[in-house]
Amino acid sequence: MSIKVGVVGYGTIGKRVADAVHNQKDMELVGVTAHSYSFLTEVAQLKGYKIYSSGDASDLEANGIKPEADVKKLLEEADVIIDGTPKKVGKENLENLYKPAKVKAIFQGGEKHETTGTSFVAQANYSEALNKDYARVVSCNTTGLTRTLNEINKAYGIGSVHATMIRRGADPADIYHGPINGIVPVLEMPSHHGPDVMTVLKGPEVFTTALSVSTTLMHVHSIIADLKKEAEVQDIINLFNDTTRVRVVRNAEKVRSTAQIMEFAKDLGNSRGDMPEICVWEEAIGTDKSKKKLFYMQAVHQESDVVLENVDCIRAVTGFEDAEKSIKMTNESFGLKK
Amino acid sequence: MSIKVGVVGYGTIGKRVADAVHNQKDMELVGVTAHSYSFLTEVAQLKGYKIYSSGDASDLEANGIKPEADVKKLLEEADVIIDGTPKKVGKENLENLYKPAKVKAIFQGGEKHETTGTSFVAQANYSEALNKDYARVVSCNTTGLTRTLNEINKAYGIGSVHATMIRRGADPADIYHGPINGIVPVLEMPSHHGPDVMTVLKGPEVFTTALSVSTTLMHVHSIIADLKKEAEVQDIINLFNDTTRVRVVRNAEKVRSTAQIMEFAKDLGNSRGDMPEICVWEEAIGTDKSKKKLFYMQAVHQESDVVLENVDCIRAVTGFEDAEKSIKMTNESFGLKK
Repeated sequence: MSIKVGVVGYGTIGKRVADAVHNQKDMELVGVTAHSYSFLTEVAQLKGYKIYSSGDASDLEANGIKPEADVKKLLEEADVIIDGTPKKVGKENLENLYKPAKVKAIFQGGEKHETTGTSFVAQANYSEALNKDYARVVSCNTTGLTRTLNEINKAYGIGSVHATMIRRGADPADIYHGPINGIVPVLEMPSHHGPDVMTVLKGPEVFTTALSVSTTLMHVHSIIADLKKEAEVQDIINLFNDTTRVRVVRNAEKVRSTAQIMEFAKDLGNSRGDMPEICVWEEAIGTDKSKKKLFYMQAVHQESDVVLENVDCIRAVTGFEDAEKSIKMTNESFGLKK
Repeated sequence: MSIKVGVVGYGTIGKRVADAVHNQKDMELVGVTAHSYSFLTEVAQLKGYKIYSSGDASDLEANGIKPEADVKKLLEEADVIIDGTPKKVGKENLENLYKPAKVKAIFQGGEKHETTGTSFVAQANYSEALNKDYARVVSCNTTGLTRTLNEINKAYGIGSVHATMIRRGADPADIYHGPINGIVPVLEMPSHHGPDVMTVLKGPEVFTTALSVSTTLMHVHSIIADLKKEAEVQDIINLFNDTTRVRVVRNAEKVRSTAQIMEFAKDLGNSRGDMPEICVWEEAIGTDKSKKKLFYMQAVHQESDVVLENVDCIRAVTGFEDAEKSIKMTNESFGLKK
């Protein structure tokens, strides 16, 4: 029996999760929503995805797209909905659509933890989402922090973390937001990322600050972790090399920046040139003299890291108990080696 | 009998042509060169491409890449070499490598027309390269201008063309060049593009100017053509819709900028997110009152449009006479519909 999945909100994350669901052996993509006509809808139709209108369908029909039905029909036919709508719309959909239709739903990191009470990163807390009606995959940045910190915490114990997120200003296809020339500090202390990590990774105190810069490609995190045990740099490299969904990249192979990570991802043949793994620069891992303060820098592809998490979360909320097996199935469908 | 192709210079164009050759039914990729270790070499090895060292192999070997042989062996085994080396290196290679080895060679637009005497855009002058020992695929911009102007010239006759190229500052993975904040006029009149078009498209007088801006995605051309016959805008749209390797994109489908063209290409599943077709905005095609002055804007993906041309040029120089069939074979291997 396949898990039937519907995607509400077919944007940056929604379209990627739709493709990923379509590629899972144990899932079936029921369809995706469209609220107005665009090249996204054209491509969904080309791929043979059923389109459900989430609003007035006249714009779609005027452009040759005949929706299968209304979004309510999608809710009836799906076991789980992936909600990929913009920030705060997910919460409204929970009340107005998913609860009345009695359908399970998974939200993105734009929603607050309180919306579902369950925040999710597969390799850190898969079992917390087991059989839940509603869960939330945390944001790209929180996912990135959690993936690496969770492994360090298991191996060395972490007291506290201080990290700075250098955030991309806007997504690559977004021509309406900036900055195009400036560095914009987030003026809240801590930024929401630190507290958000703590909804998933229990134990360490995580304090983050953030700034936006003029790039669209990836976020970069500069991380300082206070360890409970001494660490050797080479052991940290080995640890990350063994960690699923983390990739150690090297200046020695001329991966000098986020720009070359994106080029590498394209060359690898990854769908849309995505890099769903968190990339840690080998040459940017260091410790202080005490060996209990660890420094590292990592890059996060904001458009794709959480796609893997959405797929695992679908399995968790529908009762598939084996976290490791789910992660392996998802990874294999993306061509990830570990 | 497959055409045996070697790629010397495995960079932006070389790696794409290597993949394209690998995907042609009538060609065999003998191998590619590497001069030093990088993620490019890693990926070439992952893909199973044979690697030939073009220089000291110690850096490659220290990083676990064992070259098949020296570049001279590649020249012996190939029927045609695609030279994807930087500007002016191609000309040196012609004298120092290809002539002594008596191997056919195709160069890129960084080389001058005089280097081979034969400049090539498949849909405009395929037959000129038939059985030539050496030919040159013109630059991305010249290719883009030629593809659309050639069709307009056939249908309406063009007296003269005045065009402004708004050029991307650097390629996406290039972190060493700019501008990152400024508009840089090319201070030669005309820019080299116009005269370059005239090496391929005989008849129209083409005068171009150019500027570089802070983007990596695509070039954009703003074109004014003086026609010999009156044109209706809808007829020009229809003409471009019927033209191979040209795609009409529309604001109506929310393709508002080069950023959305790149997103569209990713969504279509194109390798590396490339857009090898020249994209003309439907809403940016216009005429003046006389209907003999035509205005249009088009976007050129500098990394990929010429890849199609290299493939066809390989067939031309090895004696395959049917231009239309070659273009069709190449297009089909890229999933292009026309």
